[in-house]
Amino acid sequence: MSHNTFGHLFRVTTWGESHGPALGCVVDGCPPGIRFTPAEIQHFLDRRKPGQSRFVTQRREADAVKILSGVLPDEAGGEYLTTTGTPVSMMIENTDQRSKDYSEIARQYRPGHADYTYDVKYGLRDYRGGGRSSARETAARVAAGGLARKVVPGMRVRAALVQIGDKPIDRANWNWDSADQNPFFAPDPAIVPVWEDYLDDIRKRGSSVGAIVEVVAEGVPAGLGAPIYGKLDQDIASGLMSINAVKGVEIGEGFAAAALTGEENADAMHPGENGTPSFSSNHAGGILGGISTGMPIVARFAVKPTSSILTERPSVDRDGNAVSVRTKGRHDPCVGIRAVPIGEAMLACILADHYLRDRGQNGERVVDR
Amino acid sequence: MSHNTFGHLFRVTTWGESHGPALGCVVDGCPPGIRFTPAEIQHFLDRRKPGQSRFVTQRREADAVKILSGVLPDEAGGEYLTTTGTPVSMMIENTDQRSKDYSEIARQYRPGHADYTYDVKYGLRDYRGGGRSSARETAARVAAGGLARKVVPGMRVRAALVQIGDKPIDRANWNWDSADQNPFFAPDPAIVPVWEDYLDDIRKRGSSVGAIVEVVAEGVPAGLGAPIYGKLDQDIASGLMSINAVKGVEIGEGFAAAALTGEENADAMHPGENGTPSFSSNHAGGILGGISTGMPIVARFAVKPTSSILTERPSVDRDGNAVSVRTKGRHDPCVGIRAVPIGEAMLACILADHYLRDRGQNGERVVDR
Amino acid sequence: MSHNTFGHLFRVTTWGESHGPALGCVVDGCPPGIRFTPAEIQHFLDRRKPGQSRFVTQRREADAVKILSGVLPDEAGGEYLTTTGTPVSMMIENTDQRSKDYSEIARQYRPGHADYTYDVKYGLRDYRGGGRSSARETAARVAAGGLARKVVPGMRVRAALVQIGDKPIDRANWNWDSADQNPFFAPDPAIVPVWEDYLDDIRKRGSSVGAIVEVVAEGVPAGLGAPIYGKLDQDIASGLMSINAVKGVEIGEGFAAAALTGEENADAMHPGENGTPSFSSNHAGGILGGISTGMPIVARFAVKPTSSILTERPSVDRDGNAVSVRTKGRHDPCVGIRAVPIGEAMLACILADHYLRDRGQNGERVVDR
Amino acid sequence: MSHNTFGHLFRVTTWGESHGPALGCVVDGCPPGIRFTPAEIQHFLDRRKPGQSRFVTQRREADAVKILSGVLPDEAGGEYLTTTGTPVSMMIENTDQRSKDYSEIARQYRPGHADYTYDVKYGLRDYRGGGRSSARETAARVAAGGLARKVVPGMRVRAALVQIGDKPIDRANWNWDSADQNPFFAPDPAIVPVWEDYLDDIRKRGSSVGAIVEVVAEGVPAGLGAPIYGKLDQDIASGLMSINAVKGVEIGEGFAAAALTGEENADAMHPGENGTPSFSSNHAGGILGGISTGMPIVARFAVKPTSSILTERPSVDRDGNAVSVRTKGRHDPCVGIRAVPIGEAMLACILADHYLRDRGQNGERVVDR
Repeated sequence: MSHNTFGHLFRVTTWGESHGPALGCVVDGCPPGIRFTPAEIQHFLDRRKPGQSRFVTQRREADAVKILSGVLPDEAGGEYLTTTGTPVSMMIENTDQRSKDYSEIARQYRPGHADYTYDVKYGLRDYRGGGRSSARETAARVAAGGLARKVVPGMRVRAALVQIGDKPIDRANWNWDSADQNPFFAPDPAIVPVWEDYLDDIRKRGSSVGAIVEVVAEGVPAGLGAPIYGKLDQDIASGLMSINAVKGVEIGEGFAAAALTGEENADAMHPGENGTPSFSSNHAGGILGGISTGMPIVARFAVKPTSSILTERPSVDRDGNAVSVRTKGRHDPCVGIRAVPIGEAMLACILADHYLRDRGQNGERVVDR
Repeated sequence: MSHNTFGHLFRVTTWGESHGPALGCVVDGCPPGIRFTPAEIQHFLDRRKPGQSRFVTQRREADAVKILSGVLPDEAGGEYLTTTGTPVSMMIENTDQRSKDYSEIARQYRPGHADYTYDVKYGLRDYRGGGRSSARETAARVAAGGLARKVVPGMRVRAALVQIGDKPIDRANWNWDSADQNPFFAPDPAIVPVWEDYLDDIRKRGSSVGAIVEVVAEGVPAGLGAPIYGKLDQDIASGLMSINAVKGVEIGEGFAAAALTGEENADAMHPGENGTPSFSSNHAGGILGGISTGMPIVARFAVKPTSSILTERPSVDRDGNAVSVRTKGRHDPCVGIRAVPIGEAMLACILADHYLRDRGQNGERVVDR
Repeated sequence: MSHNTFGHLFRVTTWGESHGPALGCVVDGCPPGIRFTPAEIQHFLDRRKPGQSRFVTQRREADAVKILSGVLPDEAGGEYLTTTGTPVSMMIENTDQRSKDYSEIARQYRPGHADYTYDVKYGLRDYRGGGRSSARETAARVAAGGLARKVVPGMRVRAALVQIGDKPIDRANWNWDSADQNPFFAPDPAIVPVWEDYLDDIRKRGSSVGAIVEVVAEGVPAGLGAPIYGKLDQDIASGLMSINAVKGVEIGEGFAAAALTGEENADAMHPGENGTPSFSSNHAGGILGGISTGMPIVARFAVKPTSSILTERPSVDRDGNAVSVRTKGRHDPCVGIRAVPIGEAMLACILADHYLRDRGQNGERVVDR
Repeated sequence: MSHNTFGHLFRVTTWGESHGPALGCVVDGCPPGIRFTPAEIQHFLDRRKPGQSRFVTQRREADAVKILSGVLPDEAGGEYLTTTGTPVSMMIENTDQRSKDYSEIARQYRPGHADYTYDVKYGLRDYRGGGRSSARETAARVAAGGLARKVVPGMRVRAALVQIGDKPIDRANWNWDSADQNPFFAPDPAIVPVWEDYLDDIRKRGSSVGAIVEVVAEGVPAGLGAPIYGKLDQDIASGLMSINAVKGVEIGEGFAAAALTGEENADAMHPGENGTPSFSSNHAGGILGGISTGMPIVARFAVKPTSSILTERPSVDRDGNAVSVRTKGRHDPCVGIRAVPIGEAMLACILADHYLRDRGQNGERVVDR
């Protein structure tokens, strides 16, 4: 098993389990001269943090990030750090690891979880809280994403939840400000009370439900990407699919493109400012032939319902015996909610990587040489 | 631009343009001792070949594969070749490159095509027939896939078209044999006349339409994959998204999982034969936590409508002037049809790669040492 | 800058500067089921640790390793840990960072150091104690090497110093036990008093001198390596050349092979036990055609003299002005001494990587599946 | 086996055996807009070509290169081609494959050759003329190097033979022009008659001898390289060690640095033109801390004597029986001679790669965008 790293020039390696002392990431390839504060990174971690509302897991983690390398403090003092081009190591200590008896889960395979497949692959696994397959790993991604956002000048990456269960938002109501003002990252204020009632019911029944997240990056220059097997959409698909519980990824029109005609789907172009063409629509989601067009990058991903539910399900144990499994513990009724900041982080990292691949390891060379 | 290779141990590099002398691939990491005939590879190329029916491009290419390296002939004579573990270089010569005046297309950006983005990225492009962004590149993938199928013992990879435009198949009629008996790779015999009429109309109007392809791999052992950023589903998403015109990829329930509850989605397990658990359903599409479960791998991908259409569309030229573009030439009314064998090839290559990552570069060590 | 990782399946990523809070590594791809104690890792760190004798830098660091992830404690209690196949994160805190005024060194380029080149590349650098270019980074490699040694069953990796300045050992006296009983890792007891006198003189003059290290791995199975660009000797050359101050690497006869004839150089083979051929000599250093022969792997590398010396040298500052630089601080008169355990660690990591590439990510599958 | 590719952004994949129909390479990541003629590539292939003098193998190969992809012809006609940024596929057909009985060599292991190790690794091998381990593979590298030379503006890469057997050149006589005027690539005219006599004797006895090659790149900008595991010297060491029969690599002073003091070894710096420092010497060989200094890159590599000799040597066959092997056929008495253009090609490719890693995939963006 050798793939806890992603990226080609902007490379993120994550480590850590749910119930070890800590987890973290090493961001290699971050250009020198990027100024940031730990508080800026922490902001994104706080958005992903558990225990923020009754709709997410009640585990309580400070998720406080420590920057261990790759930066110089400001000579003038103050909170600002400047990257030096060397690996930025960030660590988050685990603090709320409930001490409990894991002997049952250690031997049983929870349906829908990675218990069985990890055991098949490795012959043993860290069963404590899901171990490495726990979504806690994504805290490290969010920290890396905080840095990645600074790599592409002028880029803004945002995400929102566009569907919970069979209840999609009304896109006519889209309002990015709204997405920061409710516990669902919903961009449609009208859907909020609907989802509250729906998820309260799901939660009380000890059930769970899936969701769809939309991620949008604005300010991405045209020309990022690399045919044929380093296409920007391909790396986005890979990155979003790597998020726990994701089962589908689409760009622009996505699956809906199957039902369109060529006339409906192809975005017409017009002369734009400064000689740059403008597009009259964005069915392509900002990518043609694997390369960015300059329009916003738009991707969506589907998150399956949390597999941890209170209903008993038939399963087997390590010895192959039939068992009945009921997952206790603190879990998310809709893990898709917390996937919103994770999706942002992944998209930011992938765009940072392609930006450096196009522009060179030092990117814009933000420090004057 | 440095990404015409995919795979980590079973690595495929493709090269070649639509209108150069040839195209091909180098398959590196193919285990030694695999016996095959060029005819077996040719079989898959013939399935992808243009000109097979009125529903695909009328370009006429023999697409005859030449094996240039990496093999030993049978000592006994005969058609069989045996891989030696060194790179297998395969070449397909271009024969039907219509000589024509490309000066118009060289300066205009066809909407929905990669013309503009290639020019932004590289400052120049091979405009002849789409150059490197032409789907002719996929012939090389299909050749590589022919070898990949032999790497995983007992594996069978098949694909079918499950939707054209807004017309999906009836899954109750699914019949794999049918998929080989009509020009659409349709697994539902009842849909064939419907699609014929529909596509004839599209074709005559010089229009195009999208489609959805389903790819299934049976006989894949449990345990293939690699968390966290080398997940099997992640590599499948990347591989399928790399196919020309693909805008979405999903595994198992895919986007439909968003509307399911945890009870509906998680596949129950039961004691199976030889101590191996069996699953009562396959919502997961054969993958949990990024690792194969032993159930069939099921993926779908959405193909956008061909951007080459006869209707005039507004666009710009290289100098930023407004132009009106109408794409002449021999094109596919539904490029999704020919994506069927390509999807199979990509899935076969990805599974071969993960098989070797799990089992070692020599895989099953098919040659006795 | 994106290359703080080496290895293809057994991948080591290091991070950390000389004067940050900590440094460490993430070992990705370590097979599951490997049992070890932190004390075993610490043993190798202690060999590399500064302040062990008057011949190395007097900086005092505990270099105590913390294991942060990738392991399960023994169920029975006790010091033993078992790897789970997930990334093993190891951290070493910096404790003896002398607070001092670095303003001079921040602006001046020390001859022979990486000061100028880092500034050219990144536009800024962490000048505190050499920052990332400090040999303190190698502590992380030694920790990784401690794990790597356990990956290849039966392998033993040892190194020794075979030359300081112009004073080589007498190879007729070679005694591995001796190498652990003197501050130079000298395998020739007779050279020890000679080197003591020589280095005392060098040290007192504030000068420095180069050295040559020999690394030997026994118990390496035949068949490791990968032609043409993943040759075992090629990866060894890369790995050893990556150690600070190394200027040359050779395998087996190395540069001396230039003066040999084919008759002298080629190792004859004879029928051996169990059908395995035996070699009557090992001029090849255990590698033919990039693949291991089963004989001991033998490599040597040349370490240049420490560039930090008390003699004033002409140089320039960041503004291009002529300056005169004299390096104060605690330094090694012969940095080659501490390169001995580092060379061992690099060779162990590279062999672990190739072992897994040959045998599969789970290697010997040490845990029964 | 999956490593017939080197480079990170400028990636070269080679394929082909000594006795197959052809061999070649795919150069991926070559920037767009580079103009060249096939004759320029052919020039370097001709330097490496067999049969040029009595001191190299008498195999007769035209080694004519065909460019199969990745280029556009000049609109004005003429021989010039322009790269498009897509993979450049180059092929060289094998023409002089002597048809002979290989049954003996197929079963016997030639001492010093890769016969045994290939069989151990793959269980079978292409024994015809050495198959993939034949130095014919290096023709593909030389073709790739011809392109690489054009990637770094103003760079000049040259190599020369500095030692045959125990007979080094007199460096005081160094004259680059001389290196092109004798069959040895000797930069010292005075050594030519000495080597002629010496090698004639070696050749007539059916023996062979080793050699040392020096490679120099001028015009390399400061700042290329990447700490800690992507050091420029590390990639040079890896690249040169990948050449057949190479057993040692050194940079600048190399192994001689072991005997120097810090005062002797560190290159002093002085204020230079345009604010760029100048170095008063180049013991470092143009690299400090893994990053180029702007001084010439200087590397040397040792080539072992050809293992194919006429003297009978004891060995074993595939069944483990003792045999006596005498290598007939057309071989080089000093394979180091033809390694000269190969060393140049490898250094050019590695520098092109690091140039693009520093400057972005499109490098200097030679085409105006």
